[in-house]
Amino acid sequence: MKIRFYNAKILTMESNAEIFDGEVWVEDTRILYVGNGENKEEFLKKAGIVCLLWDEEIDCEGNLLMPGFKDAHTHSGMTLLRSYADDLPLQNWLNEQIFPTEAKLCEEDIYEASRLAVLEYLTSGITGIFDMYLAPEATGRACKEMGMRCALVSGLNNFTQSPEFMEKMYQTYHLDNEDSLLSFQLGVHAEYTCSKELLEKTADMSHKYKAPVFMHLSETEAEVKACRERYGMTPVQFLDSIGMFEYGGGGYHCVHMDEKDMEIFERRGLHVITNPASNMKLASGIAPITEFLKRGISVSIGTDGAASNNCLDMFREMFLVSGLAKVREKDAAVVEALEVLKMACVNGAKAMQSADCDALAEGKKADLIMIDLQQPNMQPLQHTAQNIVYSGSKQNIKMTMINGKILYRDGKFYVGVTPDEIYRNVNHILRRIKETQG
Amino acid sequence: MKIRFYNAKILTMESNAEIFDGEVWVEDTRILYVGNGENKEEFLKKAGIVCLLWDEEIDCEGNLLMPGFKDAHTHSGMTLLRSYADDLPLQNWLNEQIFPTEAKLCEEDIYEASRLAVLEYLTSGITGIFDMYLAPEATGRACKEMGMRCALVSGLNNFTQSPEFMEKMYQTYHLDNEDSLLSFQLGVHAEYTCSKELLEKTADMSHKYKAPVFMHLSETEAEVKACRERYGMTPVQFLDSIGMFEYGGGGYHCVHMDEKDMEIFERRGLHVITNPASNMKLASGIAPITEFLKRGISVSIGTDGAASNNCLDMFREMFLVSGLAKVREKDAAVVEALEVLKMACVNGAKAMQSADCDALAEGKKADLIMIDLQQPNMQPLQHTAQNIVYSGSKQNIKMTMINGKILYRDGKFYVGVTPDEIYRNVNHILRRIKETQG
Repeated sequence: MKIRFYNAKILTMESNAEIFDGEVWVEDTRILYVGNGENKEEFLKKAGIVCLLWDEEIDCEGNLLMPGFKDAHTHSGMTLLRSYADDLPLQNWLNEQIFPTEAKLCEEDIYEASRLAVLEYLTSGITGIFDMYLAPEATGRACKEMGMRCALVSGLNNFTQSPEFMEKMYQTYHLDNEDSLLSFQLGVHAEYTCSKELLEKTADMSHKYKAPVFMHLSETEAEVKACRERYGMTPVQFLDSIGMFEYGGGGYHCVHMDEKDMEIFERRGLHVITNPASNMKLASGIAPITEFLKRGISVSIGTDGAASNNCLDMFREMFLVSGLAKVREKDAAVVEALEVLKMACVNGAKAMQSADCDALAEGKKADLIMIDLQQPNMQPLQHTAQNIVYSGSKQNIKMTMINGKILYRDGKFYVGVTPDEIYRNVNHILRRIKETQG
Repeated sequence: MKIRFYNAKILTMESNAEIFDGEVWVEDTRILYVGNGENKEEFLKKAGIVCLLWDEEIDCEGNLLMPGFKDAHTHSGMTLLRSYADDLPLQNWLNEQIFPTEAKLCEEDIYEASRLAVLEYLTSGITGIFDMYLAPEATGRACKEMGMRCALVSGLNNFTQSPEFMEKMYQTYHLDNEDSLLSFQLGVHAEYTCSKELLEKTADMSHKYKAPVFMHLSETEAEVKACRERYGMTPVQFLDSIGMFEYGGGGYHCVHMDEKDMEIFERRGLHVITNPASNMKLASGIAPITEFLKRGISVSIGTDGAASNNCLDMFREMFLVSGLAKVREKDAAVVEALEVLKMACVNGAKAMQSADCDALAEGKKADLIMIDLQQPNMQPLQHTAQNIVYSGSKQNIKMTMINGKILYRDGKFYVGVTPDEIYRNVNHILRRIKETQG
């Protein structure tokens, strides 16, 4: 398949936020050409291409093409629990509502919930997700069938999954699976849900495969306090002390980090994946994003699951990353819009170890979106990149392409299944769960 | 015009958040009937209606009808300055960027900018605005032509507008204008931009007309500190001491309020109009919403202008009202979703002194919206009211009706002017402003 996008504004996110008029050509799963069109002939000659026959030519009508957003921490299977238990203190929310309900979910339920999540990702211009949940294979299946790029990560803990399962997943989806939409990273749910033995086994496995490890990390004050009581160290320092971060990785949330934690992140090149909406709604706090940036720590952005957020919307997250940092530091100048856009497009791809999805450039994966500039919230046309971060919303997503395939365009989905079928199924599952309650 | 909406889910916001299946009938500018349809015959008989001929019957396909949102503090004319000067400290932003640029705006510029704002309000389900800006008549003209409900408020200060202007506006738009889309309320820009004499004249006028007064109030710490230095009192206490609140009114922002300020608000029945996105982005702080609610103070919600926000989106504001309160109080249980929905629909109407736009009920103004429940972010269908606050976005607005007229439906505007014309004009104005810069 060869697709030509023309009459476009283009934001490559390669090195700066310059926007230019031009074209993007896609061949199969990758980007063949990005440019202002002036060097087209030269490019074709150099590439030894005599004749290009397009399968589709798309007039962008002056709208903006840019790399898709990466949702670098999510639990797709949790869409079933959207608005299921709001406005509760964190511990009640988790122990009395979320955990008991999750215990009733089977793999097929998580598959359906993940399909619903994929629809929502597409409406928000999300072209890659970093997903940790109870049944990674079910989520992986949903993503693969629908065309969503997904880095799965194991959520190993004392109650579900095991080192053996993790290793099997790693071998199947990471080592043997380079060309697919799916990949796999080692991960544990969190320090506080794992025995020391389990954590040590995970560290050993990361050494065996020279692989990074990811986990929920320093999300709440209580979590850090309990870890100090258990091991005399913060979660970051304890995990580092058992060799968990020898080959990199990172943490989801990272709200409550001390100086020494940040030094470890800096020294080891670990990724912070921030989840501002979830941290706000569950009253966990505001992450010290300005501190991370000052130290050159890579920050990317996740929505967290729909039970805590409650939507999977990178526009809201982007605004919050900047806005919450401003109010935290009492300084309207910190965490500029363009920095946030880089987190959402580029850093997220790196955290997911999918660096070739980060930008619009020749040879990169064709994971791109079209932003509708003809909506009132994008007018007048000035500082468009800032507008995307501070004013953008789902209504601005005109098209979402992943791996060279258009999966969403002008409000319609092209994912091999109708939204109606998915909605019917998730509502059916929800009724079943409620009937077995009590 | 008689319009029948059927096959709808209905959230009236009258007393609770119960959602039922039913119909809404609109006759000219008002709601004729709201109900589950069972009592239709009886209703017609009681109303002495023999035969109803519909001009239009709209199948809602199971989507939700509810009252529109009220943007209870905005500056429509500021859309020209959207993303014009982001990521700057507040004082630089205001003094070096916003004020000098505003000085170049003529009435016609503000009219065009207001037209752009109206388009955006409609995409966000906003059916009423409470607008303070440099040229209220220009904004009023844009709203009236396009069909937007607008309570204008004077932004009197030492540099623009005057008591005489304010009184003329009051007589034209408040006293003589009851049936129109436009109304007018007395207002000053803020304590810190007005001389004592100007403030006293405004208080006198409020006594003359027994009218409430509104203003920017206690937005920043610096503002409160400077007022204390000037008058030995907080802005709220000082304004109250000169009789400004004898007949009610309220404040925009209200971020930095002490106990005594809140007592005055409680005793006088004043309105807090909160602007969470703007307060966050300009690093002004987080308003003490939980305290206001505990005291029974009416809280409504505004977007503030597009220069500070940068979009006019009540979904984002609603999420932030609850989320920021949760993180401020370190308690995920405070400021529940339904309370926020009431602020956005009902309290906003009351603040604007347009109480008959607050809910879906017989005889109320037909200011209503249709929420698309067939988007993935509204699925599965549970706790829909919570979903609107925590998961909703502009893509969920299927229709916006104001004063019985459908102004926006399925992405198309019916406002007597094309978006293209407005976009062309605002971009033209922006170029002119930039060319005269230096």
